[in-house]
Amino acid sequence: PDSEALAAAQARNGMLTKPPAALGRLEDLAIWYAGWVGNARPNLENLQGIVFAGNHGVAAKGVSAFPIEVTVQMVANFRAGGAAINQLLTAFGARTDIVELELDRPTADFTEAPAMSEQDLVAAMAAGWEAVDPKAGLVVTGEMGIGNTTSAAAIAAALHGGGGEAWVGRGSGVDDEGLARKRDVVDAGLALHADALSDPLEVLRHLGGREIAAMAGAILAARHHRIPVILDGFICTAAASVLESVTPGALDHTVAGHVSAEGAHSMMLEKIGKEPLLSLGLRLGEGSGAALAIGVLKGAIACHSGMATFGEAGVSGG
Amino acid sequence: PDSEALAAAQARNGMLTKPPAALGRLEDLAIWYAGWVGNARPNLENLQGIVFAGNHGVAAKGVSAFPIEVTVQMVANFRAGGAAINQLLTAFGARTDIVELELDRPTADFTEAPAMSEQDLVAAMAAGWEAVDPKAGLVVTGEMGIGNTTSAAAIAAALHGGGGEAWVGRGSGVDDEGLARKRDVVDAGLALHADALSDPLEVLRHLGGREIAAMAGAILAARHHRIPVILDGFICTAAASVLESVTPGALDHTVAGHVSAEGAHSMMLEKIGKEPLLSLGLRLGEGSGAALAIGVLKGAIACHSGMATFGEAGVSGG
Repeated sequence: PDSEALAAAQARNGMLTKPPAALGRLEDLAIWYAGWVGNARPNLENLQGIVFAGNHGVAAKGVSAFPIEVTVQMVANFRAGGAAINQLLTAFGARTDIVELELDRPTADFTEAPAMSEQDLVAAMAAGWEAVDPKAGLVVTGEMGIGNTTSAAAIAAALHGGGGEAWVGRGSGVDDEGLARKRDVVDAGLALHADALSDPLEVLRHLGGREIAAMAGAILAARHHRIPVILDGFICTAAASVLESVTPGALDHTVAGHVSAEGAHSMMLEKIGKEPLLSLGLRLGEGSGAALAIGVLKGAIACHSGMATFGEAGVSGG
Repeated sequence: PDSEALAAAQARNGMLTKPPAALGRLEDLAIWYAGWVGNARPNLENLQGIVFAGNHGVAAKGVSAFPIEVTVQMVANFRAGGAAINQLLTAFGARTDIVELELDRPTADFTEAPAMSEQDLVAAMAAGWEAVDPKAGLVVTGEMGIGNTTSAAAIAAALHGGGGEAWVGRGSGVDDEGLARKRDVVDAGLALHADALSDPLEVLRHLGGREIAAMAGAILAARHHRIPVILDGFICTAAASVLESVTPGALDHTVAGHVSAEGAHSMMLEKIGKEPLLSLGLRLGEGSGAALAIGVLKGAIACHSGMATFGEAGVSGG
């Protein structure tokens, strides 16, 4: 972040017509944002939501409540403006970009082979990087991919320790049998690729998916362009975890938009040191929780940049 | 609520392109809103924020970090558009109405006499009632009044049990000595008026303030007009508690916007059976937490009313 803008934003915050710290996390959020965009009194403009879609070979193992063709169907829904993420991004003044990643070519089933080749991984991360508008004032990354909570759980287990038991949840709503299958699938993947899992990018390649790799690429690109990012739920946080595992501090330009109802998400957020802004029981993905959290950031920046100071308003200090 | 609209909203929710319950509390919120406004597919329009300001005799006891003249100064700041509440309401498309309640005539110090006469109480509640726009699609009530966390703590203690120890916090930021004074003041008020505190409206009259009574009147008026209300923090919840104590269920048309950093607020929300939407460490009052929560409601209604159904989008169900 820009240390001059950061210091100026902190100074401004102390002069606004409110008791010190009375706006709680909104104050930290506005100062954080000001630092990253290098403007002590910023506006929140040119907001970019990006939904990445990929398909997973592991979906064939019966790990989702939905059939794999739903990925393509939901992409059509995104393009037609009919999904939750469309409504949320529009409600908060953000645009919705959709990036399909070879939906007709699912990743390999990671219980049988690495999910992606090196070329696949690089292509997916590059697609994520290139999807980021260098002029965006905020990036929200979301995803769609039937089977991808299984992939994300496997990534989390490999990076943060623990097995399927610790990280697997019901995702879009599998029953008890499906849940047991997901755990077994994750454990099988961890066992098969055990030798490759000391390198976080290899974790991503062996257990991840194209949309997860693309989110990692987009979050990296945002860092390069100094664009603040709001992280979404379980799958987005798994992508972010890869970056944090490669370079601690790699997520300093991000905040956690929400903690999802997917059980292990709160544990994953703890592992990357992020406290979520919202906790409303969402477990949809698409970027929905992050999009909703734009409202909180919007409020924070509106206060920070719009409020009068004690001097301007002629209000007596405490 | 309108049971037909409620049932139709529930049915619509089940058809939207998402796994069942994947939008968590957003789904409940949208259905609740639809029921109260009597429209299964509502828009969120004509949003009214009302900030009530009153002065408290008990402020003379040194219970606030700020001098009493700050109430008038902050009202001028509200009118000039410079306060946090102005920024938040504007950010979420709501208007800011300001109602001053005889600021040059503070309530009586409740450690010496009832804070208000019967006439004062009725006038303040009526001012709150009349401030509500019958055509509003949402009402957010906030307040300003130096000393009013002391008054709110006394009301909470009288209605919900416990003394100053249980309900008093630092408000706008008193030091340890101020905190001890606040506790003593609350306990003195509870002792002096002990015989009058079995009737919730008498609690409000003896220990409350004009802006607190006005919020109660506004919340009642909103119920009469079937307008959903987002409750704010400690002081607003004390006003709401009076209504719930008079008639259980009186707050069914309300949701708790946030839990504030004022320690006992979470306990007060539990007493009235409300789970807050946000928990971001705010402790400013003015309606700021409720205004911020408009964003959550906005997102909820945008999804509910804007999303495609499985049938419309041609997406396979789970």
